Amino acid sequence: MIRVVLLGAGNVATHLYKAFSKSEKVSVVQWYNRTRSAIASYSNDVEITDDLKELKEADIYIMAVSDDSIEQLSKDLPFKDRLIAHTSGSVSIHDMDRKNRLGVFYPLQTFSKSTELDFSEVPICIEIKEKQNLKILKDLAKAIGSKPYKIYTEQRQTLHLAAVFVNNFTNQMYRIAHEIGETENVDFNILKPLILETAKKVQHISPYMAQTGPAKRNDKKTIKRHLKQIENDDHKKIYELLTNSIKKTHGASSKLSNHKKLTT
Amino acid sequence: MIRVVLLGAGNVATHLYKAFSKSEKVSVVQWYNRTRSAIASYSNDVEITDDLKELKEADIYIMAVSDDSIEQLSKDLPFKDRLIAHTSGSVSIHDMDRKNRLGVFYPLQTFSKSTELDFSEVPICIEIKEKQNLKILKDLAKAIGSKPYKIYTEQRQTLHLAAVFVNNFTNQMYRIAHEIGETENVDFNILKPLILETAKKVQHISPYMAQTGPAKRNDKKTIKRHLKQIENDDHKKIYELLTNSIKKTHGASSKLSNHKKLTT
Repeated sequence: MIRVVLLGAGNVATHLYKAFSKSEKVSVVQWYNRTRSAIASYSNDVEITDDLKELKEADIYIMAVSDDSIEQLSKDLPFKDRLIAHTSGSVSIHDMDRKNRLGVFYPLQTFSKSTELDFSEVPICIEIKEKQNLKILKDLAKAIGSKPYKIYTEQRQTLHLAAVFVNNFTNQMYRIAHEIGETENVDFNILKPLILETAKKVQHISPYMAQTGPAKRNDKKTIKRHLKQIENDDHKKIYELLTNSIKKTHGASSKLSNHKKLTT
Repeated sequence: MIRVVLLGAGNVATHLYKAFSKSEKVSVVQWYNRTRSAIASYSNDVEITDDLKELKEADIYIMAVSDDSIEQLSKDLPFKDRLIAHTSGSVSIHDMDRKNRLGVFYPLQTFSKSTELDFSEVPICIEIKEKQNLKILKDLAKAIGSKPYKIYTEQRQTLHLAAVFVNNFTNQMYRIAHEIGETENVDFNILKPLILETAKKVQHISPYMAQTGPAKRNDKKTIKRHLKQIENDDHKKIYELLTNSIKKTHGASSKLSNHKKLTT
């Protein structure tokens, strides 16, 4: 049984609490938050506190707090030589106070309060300063059904950046499609299966292999018509930049001009 | 039973042939392609031809050929007053020869030759010139398990454009994440669950509601660090443009500065 004290009350903390509670291999000894009210509704299920001095003994202290609070919280902890881990994608492991043993337990997934999360779909990126702490962090990930990946700080920061592309920027593509559709009263539902299929495709083939469309084919006629169709200047700029990015990735322009030479 | 003659041998034609063949409500009377070899392997299952003069009688002629060939093929058809429909997302219904009754049967999905396609996940956008042809096109879509949507030309062209954003541009986001990951030898598998979850999220909440991340929060510190991290100038430009697009969508900059005023 891994004894955990959880610190924080945001989305990540709440989802982790639920996953830890469900696991037979984890016991949540205590849940701390600096304001009691945010976790008060759980007080029948777990011991809660807003006082760091009251923190109990545990195998791991998971600090699922905002990036800006991690350093200070690690200093404020009234004990030493225990294993503490933050859950951030970007804060360095070295920003935490060295009086304790340090780790990172970063779940790479998008968390919203409303949606139930299946942790078997959440890779957990693990970082440690001392080798002997690796096993317990891996075990904790496995205990909630997650796949642990041992990485180092630069990899975690790279993943955090890459995640912005596949999550935030991708979602903005959906948003722009939604806006474009609205100009002609198009039902966004029509696009939903395509959105899902596009994501499913790269689960088994590379994004490079999965690419299709006018930019990859360098289909100038279609690209020109699309640019004429787009009313919003920001959308136009994005269309141009991403079309050029795809062309560059696939070397479409040079390939097509060769092809044309051969066939005409 | 809907009797169909299929014209063309590309991805869309091949996937449609398979779906039509499976359906008990559809009979593929004949499959035409200008070169016989492309469909020769199906000659045991269906009558094939490369001669338009040999085309048989049918309820619908589905022209799943390239955009540039639709107009000419519609002229070359040696009959009139029959229902013909192209499958393109962008070619106008009026580009086809009026000697026949005209329709569009546009499956909005990403087609690759290798992947099996489940047509229950393929919305079919239907357009007609004469109202009496609507029913049979809808029935044909339903016969292969698809959901039909009646739309008009401008809507179809808008959808075609929107599809570039949710499919090609989104896939390029995956590709860039893949490239960024490679700089630190990061396993792309770690990002796959996030890719899938991002797509799943907008199946039931709007992209606007689904957005998270540093751009939405206008988290200047993280944005600055990310920009410093990105080595590729094209990726940097894309990061900046899409960050600003998200900020604009969510009014983050103004909201945050208000918030800051209140809390500092």
